[in-house]
Amino acid sequence: MKLVASEPYSRLAELHCAGCGSAYSPFVLQRVSPCCQLPLVAGYDLQEPLSRDAIEQTDSSMWRYGALLPLLHSENKVTLGEGLTPLLQLPRLAARYELASLLLKDEGQNPTGSFKARGLSMAISKARELGVEGCIIPTAGNAGVAMAAYCARAGLRAVVVMPRHTPKAFKEECYWYGAEVELVDGLISDCGARVRQRNADGALLDISTLKEPYRLEGKKTMGYEIAEQLGWQLPDVLLYPAGGGTGLIGIWKAFQEMKALGWLAPHTPLPRMVAVQAANCCPLLETYQGRQPNCQHYQGQATLANGLAVPHPLGEALMLRVLQESEGTVVSISEEDMLAGMRELGRQEGLFVAPEGAAVWMATRQLLASGWLRPNERVLLLNTGSAQKYLDNVAGRALE
Amino acid sequence: MKLVASEPYSRLAELHCAGCGSAYSPFVLQRVSPCCQLPLVAGYDLQEPLSRDAIEQTDSSMWRYGALLPLLHSENKVTLGEGLTPLLQLPRLAARYELASLLLKDEGQNPTGSFKARGLSMAISKARELGVEGCIIPTAGNAGVAMAAYCARAGLRAVVVMPRHTPKAFKEECYWYGAEVELVDGLISDCGARVRQRNADGALLDISTLKEPYRLEGKKTMGYEIAEQLGWQLPDVLLYPAGGGTGLIGIWKAFQEMKALGWLAPHTPLPRMVAVQAANCCPLLETYQGRQPNCQHYQGQATLANGLAVPHPLGEALMLRVLQESEGTVVSISEEDMLAGMRELGRQEGLFVAPEGAAVWMATRQLLASGWLRPNERVLLLNTGSAQKYLDNVAGRALE
Ligand SMILES: Cc1ncc(COP(=O)(O)O)c(C=O)c1O
Ligand SMILES: Cc1ncc(COP(=O)(O)O)c(C=O)c1O
Ligand SMILES: [Zn+2]
Ligand SMILES: [Zn+2]
Repeated sequence: MKLVASEPYSRLAELHCAGCGSAYSPFVLQRVSPCCQLPLVAGYDLQEPLSRDAIEQTDSSMWRYGALLPLLHSENKVTLGEGLTPLLQLPRLAARYELASLLLKDEGQNPTGSFKARGLSMAISKARELGVEGCIIPTAGNAGVAMAAYCARAGLRAVVVMPRHTPKAFKEECYWYGAEVELVDGLISDCGARVRQRNADGALLDISTLKEPYRLEGKKTMGYEIAEQLGWQLPDVLLYPAGGGTGLIGIWKAFQEMKALGWLAPHTPLPRMVAVQAANCCPLLETYQGRQPNCQHYQGQATLANGLAVPHPLGEALMLRVLQESEGTVVSISEEDMLAGMRELGRQEGLFVAPEGAAVWMATRQLLASGWLRPNERVLLLNTGSAQKYLDNVAGRALE
Repeated sequence: MKLVASEPYSRLAELHCAGCGSAYSPFVLQRVSPCCQLPLVAGYDLQEPLSRDAIEQTDSSMWRYGALLPLLHSENKVTLGEGLTPLLQLPRLAARYELASLLLKDEGQNPTGSFKARGLSMAISKARELGVEGCIIPTAGNAGVAMAAYCARAGLRAVVVMPRHTPKAFKEECYWYGAEVELVDGLISDCGARVRQRNADGALLDISTLKEPYRLEGKKTMGYEIAEQLGWQLPDVLLYPAGGGTGLIGIWKAFQEMKALGWLAPHTPLPRMVAVQAANCCPLLETYQGRQPNCQHYQGQATLANGLAVPHPLGEALMLRVLQESEGTVVSISEEDMLAGMRELGRQEGLFVAPEGAAVWMATRQLLASGWLRPNERVLLLNTGSAQKYLDNVAGRALE
């Protein structure tokens, strides 16, 4: 079939198993791979030339990259304007720590206040396209809020299962979107177990991280934006707060796709990717440093950075591959340091970042101090969310 | 002086008194007009042709309209990526109320969660350009948070004076930005009095609404964006939640400037402008309907929509002129109706809007019911902020 170049269309070609590579149809509803019970990853036709003119310049959302996203019919798009978030310079912090170039991508300015909006806009759009009637999600907070919002917008039923200790602003926002909320004692893994139990008949689509293929596709748009906003160059080092890891995996996937398409400036090396975790829950660090074979039996604790309280990430192997391929590393940050990072970003740069974003900044300081990061390198921080919904846990800690 | 067309520059030409029209220099620090103690309004050279190519397409913030903004040197820009917020269709509400076209501009996605970011980014940039060392502001909440953030980013001292009853999230965010916060019993007018007392020596720049000329210039960018996002057409009716009124006045100013520049599509009529107020504090409605000569002695009460609790707006006359010129009107909304509007926008469209934004939607329903608004008209709602910081006052009210 010939397609008119100026018509928006998707290059989606297949889904393949992250374990064994077997290919599956992208035209029917899929969950994890039937072969290995591992994530399914979307593949596109990148052979046929596609120029950067395919980017819809008049669309100031992540949907400007529609040709490289999996939605087939634009009338199924469920959008609240997510993406194309600002890439800000942090001149005062750069001067203070003698860094040549320090950038922060502020994902807190997305609808629902976090980068989860990207993944859920994409997943709920595909859910609508594939005829799903309702969705269910285990969540540390932000993903559940985003799912509730996009389901409301699409007219789909939404069930959100989150830890009881989650700050109340997360629960409250779900109620305003009309979602059903179930509270569970424990962490997101316990919520996941409850989701499997509650949804044993499969009546709802399970939107758990990497258990359906499309949240990852939404998250990868951060990678496209970073390149476009930097004039098709990339930073030397990119730091990301990793829980389930979709952002880390997705951004790396975008870099690979852009390389295949020839979109990056000639001789642009890919960044070293740093996964930042909470000291209270750092399964990736433990595996990376060889203290456990994998995260399967890791015991995590709650943290101010809810989003990092993911003890058994399904995408662990995919994350480790990104760290290896990019010559990156893993860092963990204490609760006190997250608060210190929030104070410093607030007072010096006017940013009220989620503890996850603060952890990323403190990781930068740590890697500078250890010499892993050199002052002349161009560093990009991903702040994944706004601090607003964390107030329950951080109120009163600004003035220390 | 000849300027290279591709270099960013400002067409700023003068400041004039909103009362008598006297012109003043825009190159020195100005507050209200020395002649009439009324707002000073920025004027630009719009005679010399300026095409829409002057818009910086690669800048996805309000600063893309730099030629029509008052900043003279871009190194003074204090930005967090404000502006170019999404213009969303509300298809489910449009269907429910049989409206042909219903759009919402979501200003809640700005830095600091409200449209106040635009005015404060502009005002603090000019404050830096003019050598100011610190700023003070009386605020209902959102403007103070925004000022605190931009002052932190610029390295300026910030003093925020707000009503004691303001929800605590507003105060807390100011603390994280390192601002000094003073709480006052009463409304924003009482805070204004306290600011004049505390700043009697004029050591700080008073950033009160319309007491310096540049917040208005930041707010007007909403008008430019609406036109650009609609392909240089405009809606038939535009609804705005009016407190001090800078948005209403600013958007109308942008429409006039675009008309003078020839930027609007041929034969584009300007919208009828609707000012939406809280029933608890509606000085403009009282004056408009002839129950008082002006707002000077109006007694207002607190409302869920903090931003509308402005009993004595300095820009009253300017607002009334916009209503008259545009053949618009004023509507007031009860507290219960704001909550109902928040529920409806949340459940139907996945939007968690501030009570101010909910009021605008309920005003639309009211004007439809009265016949003032016809179902075939294209309606645009301004949602000026996110609901996050209002949780103190609205938590538990979602499920009614
Ligand atoms: C603010 C924030 N940052 C980071 C993360 C981790 O994201 P991911 O699970 O994609 O690694 C989350 C997840 O909940 C989050 O909410
Ligand atoms: C959310 C919100 N909407 C509307 C307003 C009113 O804005 P203006 O004073 O420019 O009319 C405010 C002012 O505080 C506000 O915070
Ligand atoms: Zn397999
Ligand atoms: Zn005058």
